[in-house]
Amino acid sequence: MNNKCYIAIDCGGTKIAAALFSEQGQILKEETLKLEGAGGKDAADKIVTLINSLLHHAQTSNSVPVSLGVCIPGIVYHDTGKVWAPNIPDWDEYPLLDHLLKSLPKSIKVSIDSDRACYILGETWMGSAKGAKNAIFVAVGTGIGAGILVDGKILRGHGDIAGATGWMALQRPYNKKFDACGNFEYYASGDGVARTAKEILKNTTGYEGTLNPGTLRSEDVFEAFDKGDPVAIETFGQCIELWGMAVANYVSLFNPEKIILGGGVFGPAVKFIPQIMEEAKKWAQPISITQVSLKATTLGKHAGLIGAGRLAMLNT
Amino acid sequence: MNNKCYIAIDCGGTKIAAALFSEQGQILKEETLKLEGAGGKDAADKIVTLINSLLHHAQTSNSVPVSLGVCIPGIVYHDTGKVWAPNIPDWDEYPLLDHLLKSLPKSIKVSIDSDRACYILGETWMGSAKGAKNAIFVAVGTGIGAGILVDGKILRGHGDIAGATGWMALQRPYNKKFDACGNFEYYASGDGVARTAKEILKNTTGYEGTLNPGTLRSEDVFEAFDKGDPVAIETFGQCIELWGMAVANYVSLFNPEKIILGGGVFGPAVKFIPQIMEEAKKWAQPISITQVSLKATTLGKHAGLIGAGRLAMLNT
Repeated sequence: MNNKCYIAIDCGGTKIAAALFSEQGQILKEETLKLEGAGGKDAADKIVTLINSLLHHAQTSNSVPVSLGVCIPGIVYHDTGKVWAPNIPDWDEYPLLDHLLKSLPKSIKVSIDSDRACYILGETWMGSAKGAKNAIFVAVGTGIGAGILVDGKILRGHGDIAGATGWMALQRPYNKKFDACGNFEYYASGDGVARTAKEILKNTTGYEGTLNPGTLRSEDVFEAFDKGDPVAIETFGQCIELWGMAVANYVSLFNPEKIILGGGVFGPAVKFIPQIMEEAKKWAQPISITQVSLKATTLGKHAGLIGAGRLAMLNT
Repeated sequence: MNNKCYIAIDCGGTKIAAALFSEQGQILKEETLKLEGAGGKDAADKIVTLINSLLHHAQTSNSVPVSLGVCIPGIVYHDTGKVWAPNIPDWDEYPLLDHLLKSLPKSIKVSIDSDRACYILGETWMGSAKGAKNAIFVAVGTGIGAGILVDGKILRGHGDIAGATGWMALQRPYNKKFDACGNFEYYASGDGVARTAKEILKNTTGYEGTLNPGTLRSEDVFEAFDKGDPVAIETFGQCIELWGMAVANYVSLFNPEKIILGGGVFGPAVKFIPQIMEEAKKWAQPISITQVSLKATTLGKHAGLIGAGRLAMLNT
C-alpha cells in the first residue's frame, strides 16, 4: 500500500531547503541547494530541481506526494500567486505559483505562503504553540514581522500584508526617523537594539565601556550586557519595555493562547522573556493576559521548512 | 409561498430593541421594551416576550422565522452560551443561550454575540463597511472596544475577549493610573477626553476659559473646542494623535479594507477623521495604509440591531 507524503520548500535568501514529510510529520528525506545569487526564473527552477529529486525519492520508497508547500521570505499575493521577496533578485511580482504549476505533475496541489505565516503554522504543528488555534509568531531579526493564526487560519488581511508589526506605534510623538521601518522596529529589532544603544551612548557622558558607536551591532550589545555594561543594560531595559508593550497589544487585540518569540534576536534575548511578560502584564487586558503563554521558538531555523510541510498538508 | 425572515435583538443597558428582518434586509416590524432595572432571568424573559411578539407578527404576515441573533453589551462565551454584561444585573456568566433555546420553538437557530461584534457585522452588511471582509469597528464611548472582522469572520480569540483595544499600549512609560482601563482608553475614550483635559488644565497657568476641572465631562471639552478654547484644542490634539496611532496599529497588524469609528465620541469627533487619518499615515505600514478607508459609522444607534439581524442571517 502506498502512503501519502507532502513536499516542503523553505526558500531563504541564500539557499533553498526541501523536505519530504510523512503523514505523521516525519521527515523522510531532506535536501538543500544554494541559490548562488540566482533570481527570477532561475531561482524558481532550482526549487523545481529540488522538488523533482524529492518526487524521485518518493517513487522509490512507495510514497505518493499529494501536495507541496512553499515558504517565501517576503509577501505572497494569494489572488495571483505572485511573490515579492526583497533578497531574491527579480522576485518582484514574480509568478511563482504559475511556474510551479506548469513544471510539476498536475496531481500535486501547490500552496505558497510568507515565512512568517509558515513559522506560526510550524510552531502550532510541532513547536512551542502545538495545537493552538489562536497564536502569534513574532520574528525579531533585522526587521520585525508577525505570523498570526486566528481560529486556525493565517491572518492575511485585505492585501496579504497583515502582521507588519514592526510598524506598530508605541511611543509618541512621531519622528521622521521611523519612516523607513516603523517605530517598534526602529528601536527593538536586531538593528533597533544597535540604534537604541547608539542613542543612549550619545546621551551618556563618562562612558568607559567597550561599545563603539561607529561599529556597533546588536551582537556587541548582547556581549556587553553579559559583562555588566551600563549602556547595554539600559538598552535592553528599553527593548524589554517595547517588547512587553507589543506583547500586551497582541494580547488585548487578539486574545491568543500562545505568543512565540523567534528570529535572530530570540536567540540571545530568550533570557529576557520573563521580564517581557512582566512588562506585558502591566499593560494588557487583565483577563486575556492570564490566558496566554509567551514562549521562545523551539523549531528555530527549521520553523520555515516545518511550516511549509504543514502548509502542504492543510491543502489536501 | 412563505418568505424566510430573521429575528434581531439588541440588548442595551436600559432597553431592548427587537426587529424582524426580511431576507432582503428590510425591517418588517420593530419593537422595544424597557429593562426597568431587570436582570438575570427577568431580563432574559423580556427578550423572550419581544421575540414571541415578533413570532406572532411573522405568522400573521406569512413569514417563517428561521433564526435569531442577539446583541449583548458585554462578553459572550461561545462554548457555554453564557454571557457577562456589566450593566445588566446578574448577567455574570448568565446562561442566556440555554434560556432562549428552552423558551423558543426548536426550529429557530439562536446566535448571541457581543455588541462590538454586532456593530462590525452591521456595518459590513448595510453601513460604512458594506461588503468588506476585513474590517474593524472601533467603538469610542465611555470605554473603547473593537469589533474585528477577519476574512468575513468575527475575531473572538482563545477566550472570546479579543478586540479589547482600550488596553492598547501607546505611550511609555507605564503608569499605575492605566490599571483600571488601559492606556489608550485612559486618554482617548469619552471619559479619557475629560481626563486628558484635566491633566492639561492642571499644567496650564493663566487659563481663562470655561472648563472647570471639578465638573468636566467630554461634552464640555467638545463645546469649548468649538469656541476656540486653547485647553480643548490641546486636548483634541493629543486625542487625535492617540486615535491616529491606534488606527495605524490596526492597519499594520490587520491590513483591513475599512475602519469604522463609532460610539458616543464619534459623534462629535467625526470632524477630526481627516486629521486622524493624517496621523495614522505617519505611523502605519505604508502600503497597508493606502488600502484602507477610515469612515464614521452610518448606522449609528441602529448598528447593534442591524448587526444582530446579520448574525441571525449568517446562522442558517
